[in-house]
Order: sequence, then C-alpha cells, then structure tokens
Amino acid sequence: MAILYGNAVVGQSGGPTSAINATLAGVIRGALDAKAQGIIGKLYGMRNGIEGFLEERLVDLTERFDGGRDIEALELTPAAALGSCRKKLKSPDTDGETYARLLEIFKKYEIRYFFYIGGNDSMDTVLKLSEYAAKNDYEMHVVGVPKTIDNDLMATDHTPGFGSAAKFVATTVKEIMRDISVYTVKAVTIVEIMGRDAGWLTASAALPATSGDAPDLIYLPERVFDMDAFISDLEEKFKEKQALLVAVSEGIRFADGRYVGEGTQSGAVDVFGHKYLAGTGTVLEQTVKARLGCKVRSVELSLPQRCAAHIASKTDIDESVTVGRAAVAAAIEGKTGVMMTYERAEGEYSVNIGCADIRTIANEIRTVPDEYINAEGNGITDEGIAYLKPLIEGEVLPIYENGLPKHIVI
Amino acid sequence: MAILYGNAVVGQSGGPTSAINATLAGVIRGALDAKAQGIIGKLYGMRNGIEGFLEERLVDLTERFDGGRDIEALELTPAAALGSCRKKLKSPDTDGETYARLLEIFKKYEIRYFFYIGGNDSMDTVLKLSEYAAKNDYEMHVVGVPKTIDNDLMATDHTPGFGSAAKFVATTVKEIMRDISVYTVKAVTIVEIMGRDAGWLTASAALPATSGDAPDLIYLPERVFDMDAFISDLEEKFKEKQALLVAVSEGIRFADGRYVGEGTQSGAVDVFGHKYLAGTGTVLEQTVKARLGCKVRSVELSLPQRCAAHIASKTDIDESVTVGRAAVAAAIEGKTGVMMTYERAEGEYSVNIGCADIRTIANEIRTVPDEYINAEGNGITDEGIAYLKPLIEGEVLPIYENGLPKHIVI
Repeated sequence: MAILYGNAVVGQSGGPTSAINATLAGVIRGALDAKAQGIIGKLYGMRNGIEGFLEERLVDLTERFDGGRDIEALELTPAAALGSCRKKLKSPDTDGETYARLLEIFKKYEIRYFFYIGGNDSMDTVLKLSEYAAKNDYEMHVVGVPKTIDNDLMATDHTPGFGSAAKFVATTVKEIMRDISVYTVKAVTIVEIMGRDAGWLTASAALPATSGDAPDLIYLPERVFDMDAFISDLEEKFKEKQALLVAVSEGIRFADGRYVGEGTQSGAVDVFGHKYLAGTGTVLEQTVKARLGCKVRSVELSLPQRCAAHIASKTDIDESVTVGRAAVAAAIEGKTGVMMTYERAEGEYSVNIGCADIRTIANEIRTVPDEYINAEGNGITDEGIAYLKPLIEGEVLPIYENGLPKHIVI
Repeated sequence: MAILYGNAVVGQSGGPTSAINATLAGVIRGALDAKAQGIIGKLYGMRNGIEGFLEERLVDLTERFDGGRDIEALELTPAAALGSCRKKLKSPDTDGETYARLLEIFKKYEIRYFFYIGGNDSMDTVLKLSEYAAKNDYEMHVVGVPKTIDNDLMATDHTPGFGSAAKFVATTVKEIMRDISVYTVKAVTIVEIMGRDAGWLTASAALPATSGDAPDLIYLPERVFDMDAFISDLEEKFKEKQALLVAVSEGIRFADGRYVGEGTQSGAVDVFGHKYLAGTGTVLEQTVKARLGCKVRSVELSLPQRCAAHIASKTDIDESVTVGRAAVAAAIEGKTGVMMTYERAEGEYSVNIGCADIRTIANEIRTVPDEYINAEGNGITDEGIAYLKPLIEGEVLPIYENGLPKHIVI
C-alpha cells in the first residue's frame, strides 16, 4: 500500500479525564516521528473538537511541541488541553452543508490524517467522516481513540482515563476510612461516585480491600436498589463495627426505575417550587438519619474524579500515551473508521493495542459483569478486584511549581 | 534542674488532619531518643484521647515502633492513628472524681510526661492537667502540640495540618479550573471549602494564581456576604470569560448573621418537614441558576480536605514531625502547661519552634487579616499569597502498595 503524505489534525471531545491529554501527547509524539520520516507535515490541533474545526480554529502542534518540549507536562495535565465539545454530526444526507464545509477545510489544510479522542459520540464522528471521505474520493484516514472515566465502552478491556479516576476514587475512599475511624460513635459515611449507567468507578472503591480496608457496603447501578435492604445491611454491619463506609453510584435506581437521587425521595422543593435534586448521597443520608438515628455524612466525590491528575495511575497514563502513538501508526498503515482498543494479555498483566471497526462496535454500554458483584448485590468479588487492581498501579511524578502541579495550557 | 525519669503518654484529640500522625511520629522519635538516653522508659499511646486514657486503653508505642520501623509510613497516614475524642475535661472543682482517677492512672503507669496533640479544647486539657498535677505534688510535664486544618489558633504563625489541607485545596481548585475551561458555554463552578469562622483554607484556593490560574472570585467568612454583590461580581467577570470558578467558605454569612448555607435561603424542607440544610455551595448554585440562568455546579471539597495525605505538603509534614520531637525535648527541659508554636523567621521562609504558656493563649480565633483580603472582599491580595505559598511547598512520597498509599493502623 502506498503511504499517504500530508498533514494531520487531532481533536478532543466529550467530558474531560485525567488522561485525555496523555493520549493527545501520544498522538503528538507519533506525529513528530512521522514528520521526521517525512510522512506527516504538520499536526494541527482543533480547538473545541469538531465545533472549532468547522470554524478553522486550529493550532500548529508540531510547532508548539517542537523537539518534544512540554510534552511530559502535557501528559499530566488534566482535562482537554485543546478544549472539548459535545457536538454530534448529523448524517451527510440531512446536513450536507456541514460535510461540504468539512471537506473544504480538509482540502485547504491538506488533512490526510484525522484523529479524534473521545467517547461514544466521538466514535460516531470518526465513522461518519471516514465514510464521507471514502464516498467523496478524498483520501484521509480517520482514527478514533476512546477515553472515558466510566470504562463503559465495548470492544476494549478498559478505557484510557478510567484507571486514573479509579485510583483517585480508591485512594480517597481509603483516606476517608482512616478519617471516619477515629471516633467511637456509631456513624455512617456515604461516598457518592460517578457513573450513571455502569458501576465501574464505584466498584473501584473496593480496591482498598487489598490492604484490608474494604468499604463496608458498595451499591452499583447494575443492581436494583432497595432502601429497606440497605437499612438492614447497615444494621447487620453495625453488629461488627461502629464507623461504616458505604460507596454508592450516583446512578442507583429503585425497582420502578426511578433514580434514588431524583429527589422525590426527600420530597424537597426549593424556593421556586422546583423539585429539589438532592443527589443520591444526600437522599441516603437523610433516610439513614431518619431511620437509624445515628450520625450520617455524605461525600460527593464530584469533579476531581475526572481531573485529579496529581494522583493519576501510571499504568493508565503510560497506556494512554501508547495508544495515542499507536493511533498514528495505525492511520499511516492505512486504518480508517476504526477505534483503538486495549486487549488484556493472559497471565501477568499487560496490554496489547488493537483496533476495531467502528461499525462493529454496538452503541451499547458495557456494564460490570455479574461475576464481579457479590450475591447480596452490596459488594465486589475477588474476581472484580483482580480485574481492577492492575489498572491503578504505578504512580506518576508530576512536575511541581510553587507547590502545585504544573499544567500545560495550549 | 534535675531530669525527670519515668514513662510518657501521648494522645490525639479533635478532628483529623493529614499531619496529626506526623506529629505523633515526631513524639515517638523524640521518645525513642529519650529512651536511648535512659530518660523515658516507655511511651504509651492512649486510644481515643483522654477518654480512652480514663479507661486505661493504652498501647506501648516504644515497642510498636521499636527501632523506628513503620514510622515513615505513619508520618503519611492521615487521621489520628490512636483514635480521637471530643471530650473536654471539666474543672477539678466540679469533677474531682475524674481527676483522682487520672492521678491514679498516672501513678500506676509512672507517667511523668504527657503529650496531647489537638486543637483549642485539647490545650485546655493540657492546662488543667498541668495545674492539677502541680497542685497535687505529682511531678509531670504536660505539653500540648497544636493541630488543625483551620489555621485559626493564636500564638503560632500557622498550625500543623494546615499546609497539607491548603495544598489539597489549591491543587484541586487548579485541576477543576482545567476541567471547567474545556467548553465554550457560560458556566459557574462553586467550590465550597471548610472553615466555619476563619477563611484560611478558602484563601488558599488563591494559590494557583502563582501560575496565572487564580479563581475568579473568593469569599471568606471574614467579610459579610451579600447575594446581590455576588451576582454582580459574576456578571462583571462574565465580560472577560465564559467559565468562572468561585471559591467560598462554608462559613460565609449574610449581614444579619445568618449562615448562607442555613437552608432558609432555599426554603427547602425534607419529607419530615425539617429545614433542609442545603450547604453553602448548593444555596449559591440554586441562586445563580435562578438569577443568571447559566450552567452552574457546586463542588463541596468535604472530608478529603482533612485526610488527603497523598498530596500532603512536605513543609507541613516535616514541620509537624519536628514540632512533635521538639515537644519531647521541651518537656524533658521542664516545660509544662505549654503549647508548642511556630515562629516564622524574617526573609527566606524558615520556622523556629517555640512554646507559649497556655494561660496566655486567649480562647480566640485567629482570622485572616484585612491586608490579605482585597478591597472588594472577593479575592486574596499578593501579601496573603506570600504568606500562604511556602506552607504548601514540597511533595511527600508516600509508600504505595497495590497502587494505593500505605497506611499504618495501630
């Protein structure tokens, strides 16, 4: 196959993670290599994903990171350094104008390689662009690289960004367990963790079990949540100890499909009469307080789950860089309309980078399998912990300036 | 002065911090040295502070940490490894029985040195015990070591534990600023920070300014909070940029003295008819949403502020160990009824350890001085940043096992 010569462009899309810039750094490293080989001329970065690309808001990354400067710090900078967007392209049949404009920009900048780092919606963009380019005889290789803290994409063993979020969750849960165990009073601490439909991140709260610090109860959205069962689980645990830690997914639901955090549970309304969205943790907190009368506190881990890059997983960051670099190699080899994937090797943990035809990737959510959840639906099995453990291993060493991690702003 | 020979006891009291075990480790190191010199026989640790001491729940720390093993990991273990309590001793006049019991235990275990690591209430215990021992001709030196993430104690430049909490706050705020800046929509993110009466920890959210990442607005409890002024501050900032970050203390109050987080603002009640304690951030979130109509999110930093030891400040940990060790030296020198203090040297940052007579330490709160707060009452001055900056400098290197920081459980 003849090698395709020209420029490349890379974009980031969807919610931030601690590793999405590591993948960007990998693409930049791959492009710098390809530039040295005379294959790629320039690597452009699109501001705010496809949205910014349509406005030609481009930055020359080969120049910005020339000689590799600042790339290491970029690898440990959380969130999308190029900016992100939530734009989903319509089909060329209904929105031909946008595609015509895209083609015009591809030609203007001689874009032959298109890299898009993002979630499910971004992979849809990769597919549509690859098909449109082929159909219009514009030679361009379009490759997607997944990222999500939710770990819920099909066709890959895990997702770039998940390991770092899981390490933050597990570390914070372990530290909170130290904190709550200092007093001798009966108390429940509820930690609310991200993940609307899949409980991967909440499951990672089980990881302190490797040092005997397992949370007392863990509830995932994969199981129906029953308030009475929850209260009796707590009563059972109180027979053994005083300070209980409960990890819950924000997405847990009652049997009727209603989210626990919907606020109907608390019945609260704000001053404007709107139903008060208390949050899952707060609803549970109020219920436990009312029914058990003990001290209760809820902690929502919130945004740091997707941006606490200072406690990123080295495994995750290294793999995220590698998969970015591999995306460039795959595109040069002629791959298009594909998403890069991780395949876990048998035996001791290691990962092979592969890629999958996006058309074969169903628009499904990969949930936590049954064998990772205990029979009572309130904890994680050893098998689940064995899956999760290697993903959080290894520590990064951020560059610190004035006592704070250095970030690269493009 | 004749050297006092005998055993020692150490306890921890009040809310946890990331550095309270570093001080404990310092006391242990000091006691091991004194043991080698034949001055101190055993160092006992009291479980759950004075509460556990009264029940003779003691552990032999000289044996547990013999030869210095595990002490380094203890230094980076958050929360009180000995357990804590909230017990405040009454005066000997009204509760003679408790004091008689204490004296009995002192004699039984030949306690000649008593170390208590804690906040204001703990210093009160130090004072009462030192006076009671002297009055009853029981020779014992009683020394207090302060700790609080709030940094609000008098007589010391700053408090052990504050620097680590401040480093966590500043790091997290900086990471959240990366996260929120990826989209192009108008949005406000409100970060709620601990500190009911003093705004030191909230002020530390200003530290990312050292790399040009200052939060847009910062509100401390030292200034009256005005909702209209807040909204117009936001409108003003929106003229410059899209994604605003606001740091607020949980303790901000309206002119009438009411806490913003009291929930009366939102008017919400729960299903039991109780006034809903929404939290300061949530109240502000709802108000901004209603009045500006833009995207708003609030993030409560919560418990990790006092236990995120993985991002502890090396300066804080080192000083906390040193002050613990110095407490032992001071007690051997004959000091009693004192609290150990930090004195900041002139010029380049360094700290001298001193001690202050507890009777001279007013039961006052040290608030953020006027010159650290800007004229508008919505930001921190360069002078304030200059005070805070050295306290968060330096990074610790926790020991990691299975991808998680190792903690010592006694």
